[in-house]
Amino acid sequence: MSQPLRLGIAGLGTVGIGVVKIIRNHAELLAQRTGRPIVITAVSARSKGKDRGVPLGDYAWEDDPVALARREDVDVFVELMGGSEGAAKDATEAAIASGKDVVTANKALLAHHGQALALAAEATGHVIRFEAAVAGGIPVIKALTEGLAANEIGRVMGVMNGTCNYILTRMENAGLTYEEAFNEADGLGYLEADPNLDVGGIDAGHKLSLLAAIAFGTQVDFPSVELEGIGAITIEDIHQAADMGYKIKLLGVAQMTGRGLEQRMSPCLVPDTSPLGQLQGGTNMVVLEGDSVGQIVLRGAGAGEGPTASAVMGDVMDIARGFRVSTFGQPATTLRKARAARAAVPAPTPALSQRPAPYYIRMAITDKPGALAKVARVLGEAGISIDRMRQYGHQDTTAPVLIVTHKTTRSSLDEALSGMATTGVVEGAPVAIRIESV
Amino acid sequence: MSQPLRLGIAGLGTVGIGVVKIIRNHAELLAQRTGRPIVITAVSARSKGKDRGVPLGDYAWEDDPVALARREDVDVFVELMGGSEGAAKDATEAAIASGKDVVTANKALLAHHGQALALAAEATGHVIRFEAAVAGGIPVIKALTEGLAANEIGRVMGVMNGTCNYILTRMENAGLTYEEAFNEADGLGYLEADPNLDVGGIDAGHKLSLLAAIAFGTQVDFPSVELEGIGAITIEDIHQAADMGYKIKLLGVAQMTGRGLEQRMSPCLVPDTSPLGQLQGGTNMVVLEGDSVGQIVLRGAGAGEGPTASAVMGDVMDIARGFRVSTFGQPATTLRKARAARAAVPAPTPALSQRPAPYYIRMAITDKPGALAKVARVLGEAGISIDRMRQYGHQDTTAPVLIVTHKTTRSSLDEALSGMATTGVVEGAPVAIRIESV
Repeated sequence: MSQPLRLGIAGLGTVGIGVVKIIRNHAELLAQRTGRPIVITAVSARSKGKDRGVPLGDYAWEDDPVALARREDVDVFVELMGGSEGAAKDATEAAIASGKDVVTANKALLAHHGQALALAAEATGHVIRFEAAVAGGIPVIKALTEGLAANEIGRVMGVMNGTCNYILTRMENAGLTYEEAFNEADGLGYLEADPNLDVGGIDAGHKLSLLAAIAFGTQVDFPSVELEGIGAITIEDIHQAADMGYKIKLLGVAQMTGRGLEQRMSPCLVPDTSPLGQLQGGTNMVVLEGDSVGQIVLRGAGAGEGPTASAVMGDVMDIARGFRVSTFGQPATTLRKARAARAAVPAPTPALSQRPAPYYIRMAITDKPGALAKVARVLGEAGISIDRMRQYGHQDTTAPVLIVTHKTTRSSLDEALSGMATTGVVEGAPVAIRIESV
Repeated sequence: MSQPLRLGIAGLGTVGIGVVKIIRNHAELLAQRTGRPIVITAVSARSKGKDRGVPLGDYAWEDDPVALARREDVDVFVELMGGSEGAAKDATEAAIASGKDVVTANKALLAHHGQALALAAEATGHVIRFEAAVAGGIPVIKALTEGLAANEIGRVMGVMNGTCNYILTRMENAGLTYEEAFNEADGLGYLEADPNLDVGGIDAGHKLSLLAAIAFGTQVDFPSVELEGIGAITIEDIHQAADMGYKIKLLGVAQMTGRGLEQRMSPCLVPDTSPLGQLQGGTNMVVLEGDSVGQIVLRGAGAGEGPTASAVMGDVMDIARGFRVSTFGQPATTLRKARAARAAVPAPTPALSQRPAPYYIRMAITDKPGALAKVARVLGEAGISIDRMRQYGHQDTTAPVLIVTHKTTRSSLDEALSGMATTGVVEGAPVAIRIESV
């Protein structure tokens, strides 16, 4: 049996404690499978005295995660603190500078600093592994980086924020309003301290940017992810979508187009019979499309102590087995700078996606003769043709109108949406949701 | 850039040609991702002259795969011939004896000789990789061996024979009889030369036995897989199952029980809302359940040139990257001999599964007073209680009867089924299908 692999764990929240438990409970299993013991030598967290439900007395304690990262008796620095700046970044950099391998669950850190960290680690032959940062327990980084490595990837899609999917499916199944479902999720502790990380699509956008880097051999480019949260989705939209055979999901899509890399995290309509459409509650799903393999769908828990700790330990065990793969699947020095598929002309709303798609549009129009014709004319002037249009049950002096367009670009759509304001017959802002072909 | 990794490919059928195409079309991508060129030095197949649609002139030709396996200019022997004995076995053994790594898509070879081959390869520090042998392009071996390596696996399930799932979903969706759907699949070239490998569950059973070895740290034990094909499933069963909210799938289940390892490949009823229940056509699905990660579902193409070649190349690229993992996820010397969960008393039909489950039973009874009571009494005497029982539309002098039992063991069920013959009121053999909780 070889030398033990010695871990230093920074961060003893849910995931950190999950990792400690696995190492305590499965010591023999881990050693048998990797050929060497996996041990914890030191830990670090904010409060030393707190009872975390597992004995930590066998491990050296460091108040400062940077000191932990530099310890000579640590081979792998396991970063489970979170946050894109501050202690997590400092300690990760210190670990790399001290010649340690790094395993992290920190999507924000890598979305913002992944390229720099990968370059630093790879310069000295060390690895950064981050399976736990994307889709919790689902081994999607491994599938994309290794299992499907022989494929040119066409598209990566995913529902990667369980909280958003929980809110949307509660609206759908229990008839709750967005606010009610949001409050329910909040009460269950599903939301981040800053809820916009979840419902604004930022957390899922971080994850998408990491998958895109691996899939397309590009440097992580989170700022170019077109972000749109779920806050504007109403129960009316969910019902109308269902009526047409669709579900509404906060869906991430990354795709290399002729105009550059498109990364989008936004509400989309997907067919209710598709695996993505059938996904309920807090579960995550990632869809990978390769030129040889076709479509691979991976589904599982996207968060929680056990699933996330399982992913952390999968990475640790790869390191214990001596497996060293580049952070993003190829040397960071060879990753191209992504050219974002931005619209040629800045549109009123952020509008990067130029790949045409049909859109679902809902708006309220003044209930008077000619109103519908005016709406249709604005669409026509933007070059958008209508697949279906329906005016349904009146509410006071306005009538809700539902439109499904034929394929159009987001910039044409934005032109039409801003044109609606000039008709004098559209009340409030129209809701527009992309219909993604999955 | 390091030395090229040199492949010798034995077998130039669909999959072999798929591998050649990937290496020709994606040379740069493969080198970028693995850090070294991947090249073919020699190939072998039955007929040298045959036009296979790709140029093979650059590669040395060997008529004898054993000679190919021994070539000094081959680092990795890629075995794509198939068959558990003969040339595939001889050449694989020769490759291992010559100190080569092996990548194979051959489930039959490993199901029968996996333990011996793994011991031989590992004795000299070489690896056998077989991602392509199970569920085609789905990276399930990798997920189980590596991504979920920190988990104690509770259960592995899978629909792993696309042909059977095609037949069952065609019966379901197009109202075809088993014979019609079978003939359709045959016409489309979906069936093996010996169709019983598909519809008898043998091919899928091979795959299950390999997953079970990894999941439970046991030596591959294909002879203990309880096999039951789909030949007895009628459209009536499919309709009745649908009526109760179930689909019928040829489902593999491997589970470690208190009585030993249970491996079963048999038709099962699964809820139609579950991912397994929603699986249509030739697609494969594997469900992995771990103590930390919970349930992970993987879905994708289970066969075909591109998907299978993708899996072969994923293994090749791992080897190119220097990754060396034991064949079954831990050293073959440490794999325990599986104790099959056999019934204590041999039953009239093979009956290994002792984990209780509800069962669906369909039989035809003589249409005369007291017949149903006799059937119910036989069940009661075997200790089986009835959840639902229904006698429906008559056919001539017999009436079809449908029974859903509460949980019972397979041996109690077999006792009841053999008891039916003595009642004098049951015509033919009853059909019994397990209802699996997924």
